[in-house]
Amino acid sequence: MTDNVSAEQLRLLIERIERLEEEKRGIGDDIKDVYAEAKGTGFDPKIMRAIIRLRKMEKHQLDEQDALLETYRQALGMA
Amino acid sequence: MTDNVSAEQLRLLIERIERLEEEKRGIGDDIKDVYAEAKGTGFDPKIMRAIIRLRKMEKHQLDEQDALLETYRQALGMA
Amino acid sequence: MTDNVSAEQLRLLIERIERLEEEKRGIGDDIKDVYAEAKGTGFDPKIMRAIIRLRKMEKHQLDEQDALLETYRQALGMA
Amino acid sequence: MTDNVSAEQLRLLIERIERLEEEKRGIGDDIKDVYAEAKGTGFDPKIMRAIIRLRKMEKHQLDEQDALLETYRQALGMA
Repeated sequence: MTDNVSAEQLRLLIERIERLEEEKRGIGDDIKDVYAEAKGTGFDPKIMRAIIRLRKMEKHQLDEQDALLETYRQALGMA
Repeated sequence: MTDNVSAEQLRLLIERIERLEEEKRGIGDDIKDVYAEAKGTGFDPKIMRAIIRLRKMEKHQLDEQDALLETYRQALGMA
Repeated sequence: MTDNVSAEQLRLLIERIERLEEEKRGIGDDIKDVYAEAKGTGFDPKIMRAIIRLRKMEKHQLDEQDALLETYRQALGMA
Repeated sequence: MTDNVSAEQLRLLIERIERLEEEKRGIGDDIKDVYAEAKGTGFDPKIMRAIIRLRKMEKHQLDEQDALLETYRQALGMA
């Protein structure tokens, strides 16, 4: 840093990122807490994660994926 | 490094790791090639990956996961 | 789901997780924006990330890591 | 799978991928073993990983990164 202005600018940018990362970690912890609460109530976190992935898909994508997975499972004797 | 012996020892260890990492990358490329070949033949790599994950499970685990996933999907209107 | 109560409970848990994940993605985007802003001002994002990692360390850990890295680099002719 | 030919083709592709993944895991284990051996001899695996990353860089890239890191550290009072 050749001058104090840009040194100060760098410090401010880095502190903003550190605050945002702290917030992000906090939300990550909140998510873990919800999964822990769900597990305590008897739900299966692994299956919940699978459900959340499936819910991100469009209806026609999900149908297509279901059909293909079924076909491949039958082909490999896993139906 | 206070002496030449341990400097040489460190170099040898690092070179062994680098060679192994190179080999590992090569196999990673081979895996990508098989998926590309499969895609070229009309198979769906994403579903193939899902199948490979399922094949790692014991029969009773897979049955249990299938049942739970089905139950959760029905609960959320995704059946 | 054998009854409507737990189906509803599962839906609420999943919706809470989805909202939290949405928030987390938003903060991840904010972080990317700050890095982009920093890059636009002439700072190097890769070095900023390294700095943020180093700032998480205690002073004595950082000193020790600096010393060790210097020693290993000399041993390998990278000083 | 509408016919036995493509079912068999899918099985062969999947088995090839599974064998390659097995090999890749084996090499990953070998890498862990070398790090464990290095640690047993008194070397620091974390610093070794840093060294391996630096060795992948061109001389001029490494020089530039060293200079920039030094400048940023000074700007933030971490020199």
